Amino acid sequence: MERKASRVTGGTATVVEIGGIRIGHDPFPVIAGPCAVESEEQMLASAHAVADAGAAILRAGAYKPSTTPYGFRGLGRDGVKLLAAAGAEVGLPVLTQVLEAKDAEETVDQVDALEIGSGSMQDFELLRVVGRLGKPVLLRRGASATLDEWLWAAEYLLAEGNENVVLVERGVRSFGGGGSDMLDITAVPHLKELTHLPVIVDPSHAAGDAIRVQPLALAAQGVGADGVIVEVHSSPSTAKTVGPQLDADSFILLMASLGIHRLRGDIDQVDHQIVRLLARRQNLALEIGRVKANRGLPIYMPDREAELMVMIEKEAERTGIDPGHVRALFQLVLSESRRQQQIMRAAEEA
Amino acid sequence: MERKASRVTGGTATVVEIGGIRIGHDPFPVIAGPCAVESEEQMLASAHAVADAGAAILRAGAYKPSTTPYGFRGLGRDGVKLLAAAGAEVGLPVLTQVLEAKDAEETVDQVDALEIGSGSMQDFELLRVVGRLGKPVLLRRGASATLDEWLWAAEYLLAEGNENVVLVERGVRSFGGGGSDMLDITAVPHLKELTHLPVIVDPSHAAGDAIRVQPLALAAQGVGADGVIVEVHSSPSTAKTVGPQLDADSFILLMASLGIHRLRGDIDQVDHQIVRLLARRQNLALEIGRVKANRGLPIYMPDREAELMVMIEKEAERTGIDPGHVRALFQLVLSESRRQQQIMRAAEEA
Amino acid sequence: MERKASRVTGGTATVVEIGGIRIGHDPFPVIAGPCAVESEEQMLASAHAVADAGAAILRAGAYKPSTTPYGFRGLGRDGVKLLAAAGAEVGLPVLTQVLEAKDAEETVDQVDALEIGSGSMQDFELLRVVGRLGKPVLLRRGASATLDEWLWAAEYLLAEGNENVVLVERGVRSFGGGGSDMLDITAVPHLKELTHLPVIVDPSHAAGDAIRVQPLALAAQGVGADGVIVEVHSSPSTAKTVGPQLDADSFILLMASLGIHRLRGDIDQVDHQIVRLLARRQNLALEIGRVKANRGLPIYMPDREAELMVMIEKEAERTGIDPGHVRALFQLVLSESRRQQQIMRAAEEA
Amino acid sequence: MERKASRVTGGTATVVEIGGIRIGHDPFPVIAGPCAVESEEQMLASAHAVADAGAAILRAGAYKPSTTPYGFRGLGRDGVKLLAAAGAEVGLPVLTQVLEAKDAEETVDQVDALEIGSGSMQDFELLRVVGRLGKPVLLRRGASATLDEWLWAAEYLLAEGNENVVLVERGVRSFGGGGSDMLDITAVPHLKELTHLPVIVDPSHAAGDAIRVQPLALAAQGVGADGVIVEVHSSPSTAKTVGPQLDADSFILLMASLGIHRLRGDIDQVDHQIVRLLARRQNLALEIGRVKANRGLPIYMPDREAELMVMIEKEAERTGIDPGHVRALFQLVLSESRRQQQIMRAAEEA
Repeated sequence: MERKASRVTGGTATVVEIGGIRIGHDPFPVIAGPCAVESEEQMLASAHAVADAGAAILRAGAYKPSTTPYGFRGLGRDGVKLLAAAGAEVGLPVLTQVLEAKDAEETVDQVDALEIGSGSMQDFELLRVVGRLGKPVLLRRGASATLDEWLWAAEYLLAEGNENVVLVERGVRSFGGGGSDMLDITAVPHLKELTHLPVIVDPSHAAGDAIRVQPLALAAQGVGADGVIVEVHSSPSTAKTVGPQLDADSFILLMASLGIHRLRGDIDQVDHQIVRLLARRQNLALEIGRVKANRGLPIYMPDREAELMVMIEKEAERTGIDPGHVRALFQLVLSESRRQQQIMRAAEEA
Repeated sequence: MERKASRVTGGTATVVEIGGIRIGHDPFPVIAGPCAVESEEQMLASAHAVADAGAAILRAGAYKPSTTPYGFRGLGRDGVKLLAAAGAEVGLPVLTQVLEAKDAEETVDQVDALEIGSGSMQDFELLRVVGRLGKPVLLRRGASATLDEWLWAAEYLLAEGNENVVLVERGVRSFGGGGSDMLDITAVPHLKELTHLPVIVDPSHAAGDAIRVQPLALAAQGVGADGVIVEVHSSPSTAKTVGPQLDADSFILLMASLGIHRLRGDIDQVDHQIVRLLARRQNLALEIGRVKANRGLPIYMPDREAELMVMIEKEAERTGIDPGHVRALFQLVLSESRRQQQIMRAAEEA
Repeated sequence: MERKASRVTGGTATVVEIGGIRIGHDPFPVIAGPCAVESEEQMLASAHAVADAGAAILRAGAYKPSTTPYGFRGLGRDGVKLLAAAGAEVGLPVLTQVLEAKDAEETVDQVDALEIGSGSMQDFELLRVVGRLGKPVLLRRGASATLDEWLWAAEYLLAEGNENVVLVERGVRSFGGGGSDMLDITAVPHLKELTHLPVIVDPSHAAGDAIRVQPLALAAQGVGADGVIVEVHSSPSTAKTVGPQLDADSFILLMASLGIHRLRGDIDQVDHQIVRLLARRQNLALEIGRVKANRGLPIYMPDREAELMVMIEKEAERTGIDPGHVRALFQLVLSESRRQQQIMRAAEEA
Repeated sequence: MERKASRVTGGTATVVEIGGIRIGHDPFPVIAGPCAVESEEQMLASAHAVADAGAAILRAGAYKPSTTPYGFRGLGRDGVKLLAAAGAEVGLPVLTQVLEAKDAEETVDQVDALEIGSGSMQDFELLRVVGRLGKPVLLRRGASATLDEWLWAAEYLLAEGNENVVLVERGVRSFGGGGSDMLDITAVPHLKELTHLPVIVDPSHAAGDAIRVQPLALAAQGVGADGVIVEVHSSPSTAKTVGPQLDADSFILLMASLGIHRLRGDIDQVDHQIVRLLARRQNLALEIGRVKANRGLPIYMPDREAELMVMIEKEAERTGIDPGHVRALFQLVLSESRRQQQIMRAAEEA
């Protein structure tokens, strides 16, 4: 049987839009927020923290699954309202996990997407109801689900006519993993072959500790995931739930390491990178200079420089900046490079 | 008991030198070569392929473990000679896997490092013998070894006085993984906390197919591994062993995606990056320009530019290029940026 | 925190009564029936098959979880009615699995117990609702649930005041198991230490094929489980669901191997066993006879026989049959035994 | 390719003879002894304990794999001598585990079988050497070996001409198992389908604690394994190795629960069973009596009794005891049965 979730050869990948954010298209959107909505103050503080650092979507839990019957079960409806209000205040779309069909029905109008948790991946009635609601859905993998079982669960949503499904890898049960479920990073390229649906990674649970969230998020970016979900709390040490959550500062560092910055920080960052690249270029040029010296070649090689200029101007045109401006810049760069090589030759001959 | 493999708070990480390559220090060395030495021709062709693309160390198997008693068991001693000769020809250090104490003893003088395979991780006699030989050792994780069992196996090597141990994560047995063992990417940050030994990743086995080697290698780079091992064969379709091996072209693409290039390619790459960053800078500046226009702010903001120049010169000094040269460059950049903003304002006012 | 599911030192084990059958007390009750109710005819035929062979409780599925959205989902309410009618006809209590709270509510008055499936083990809302309904519950282990998570799920039921909980081990996800989940037989003794709740085993899923159901059921009996669930279908080859189901004849063989028989068959079986034991006793006596002959001891040893008679009469009193009758019987047995020994001595002397 | 280890349809199962004990033929032989040979005194005490309780083969470790380089590695050659001497003293064949080819070569003449441990299952050189030595081999499953990998390892032994291979299931790595590897009981029926080699179970490691050895051994017997290996130590609390070992008394209880007794104990046991069966027969007869009473049938039904006698005499002939003797016995039994039914009727009519 042909499944709707299957990737068709030559077919296009699905882009899921959540409040203007396009999962599967935008460069590595980060979904962030606290594990649970605990209070208006905590929700707002956490929302500002993630928005300021460049998160694309705000996420927090109002209906919480609890392993024990005596644990915190979330603020429910009231939690959803606080989440929606916080999203409005910081200008981010919002999403939240639903456990039961009735949660989904009472929540759907207040959020930009719904999330189905790991423990509900095969709650087929919930899948059917959420499929019919039509809102974008994040579908987490069950802790021991095979990729095939996961894609069948997605098929339940697609079969109801809902094509806006994002798969979330969050780790699978294993003897390893240092006490946590083990992040199945290999699932990402496998899914890219099997399905047209976007795939994101939630590293928090598998990380076991906040300190490991950043390397795992970078692994997810490296492996080609379409984004990550990160749990961020304005005050992790006082949180009502036990999983690892980043504080605001750690989240900023994570975002920086992922190459995501807000405007002002961005331009500073880019300038830093330009300078570092110029330095690297100079070292490479000096190294080539040494080779030229050994072989008795001249420092100035007009053909090579001309060739370089052609290449650079083409790249400038391609990326949309003024070729003349870039040419001027690189003439400066090349002239400095020749000057450094002369200094070097002189030093070696001395 | 204090273990020699344990990371001591504030202690330094171990750097393992293999033929001049410093694992744990050099930026992401790539160890590459064919799964098995099959012939002089195949070995040389594969060696040239990996050396040309920038591999740091050449690796190939001469003693092959075979699940079946009727399978290919490698060329043994002769294979080691062919590997050593190929390494000498392309100028790369070499390493190979040993299965038995006698393999290690007859091989040790011809290679720069020895490797202990997944199936031998708890071959305690082999560990003791290899520990005593003193050559650097790559120690693969057993398919169902916990991190603790793995570090105990490393301890066998260290207990014999050999501190040059590199840990190799290659996937663990799981219900998932699409038929292969599942790469345990989380093991890398865990090990960085537990031990001072460097950790590299071999994605080939867990990948299951050559097409998934690149994303997994990038995940390894993202998560903070100290390098990767990649199987590269001059003609994978005719290989005598069955695991996924990259061909020369795929390996070049992999190396490029990892940001590894040879000198001449490097400088072109850096120049491309500079141009792309300049383009990105310009777009950011135009976006800020729009904000300034909306708020009625002037295009030229001398304080901001002065502040920027101070920052840039500091970075130039830090990275060792001439601050005057960089200042000149950025004056060009800023002047172009102002020009673009004026064009934009004019266009919007029109 | 003290959990209600925990075994208290010196405390008694819970006995769960389902329609007169006492799980945790009766000798190895077998719960049996078809995977799914498919039709009145199939349900009745299957019910007769399991009842005739000595099953204690009739079980069949009306609400079926299906991995795929395009699969058979059971007859629902109508299925429950057919199950209840079949149970009434063959005189067995009945139970069925519920997927949603509303299934439980509409089913509870027609069955003697409810079952919560593997995929719903952490459907906390369902657990709460079923807990409140007060009917005995069979709680299956999730495919990747630890014993602790499973007992927390049971705690949800107990926390609502329902103490009639039976745990059902059905296999866990693993790299092994020949493509099925792997039966965790060790869970049984572990649970006997951890909880006062009865534990039964469902071998069908882990068996993978009907041929392996019998050995696994015997393993469950050996390990000390309180019973088993077995899927039995009047015509397995035409079943609407795909898991392994026994046919009527295989179920009779299984029941015989478990030592479970109906009255008439039972007495024949017991007589067979008595005869086999008499034969075994005779062989042992002959062997002892040989030893006696070698040592020159007499065949008739009055002290030993007297001692034996005392022991036998004690056992007769303990088990409630007439000691004089048993004494008469064993005098016959001993006299035959002496006769056989004499024949043997004569043969050897000849 | 046809493998030598594969079961051929209609082919016979292999029986492996170890010092007169036929694994795959004798009724559930138990291999027992201490985890490690520690001293002459401990070895002898343990050997007497297992021999007295009815063990078939004595086993103890002289070459011990140790997870840590700082642990106890066994007495080596001297340990083998102590084991062999203890076996001679108590009259049992002996076997021991070998880690290296040289261990096997120096041990082979002193033992009746060699054992290859879990960690060496894929030590292909060791397999080849042990295969060539020709002694019976116990081959343990690797902690993460699939059945296929295990059978390929066995194939290494068979390919060298050694057909006396016994497979030992000892648990596989899993998220469950309460901290130990999880006993894969389902492997036994799978292997019975796949191979003609006998399969035994070692429950000690998977048990995690001595208290769980007995239920797992009974599960192994139930599932159809050809025997078990049990670790028994004369003084477990002072043992030099850490795994669970039974003491002498627990081992006697285990053997009794497995139905294994020495001659004298045996005959007592059989007599107990006969008495219990007579009691059970009487209860069944009374129950049938009630049915007859309800239907107004007479207590004495000559046709039924005649039919029963024919059946019993046939069984007597089949099992080799005198039919006249058995007929006399059952006439006593039936007459007592009628007497009891009359007492019951009288009581009910009163």
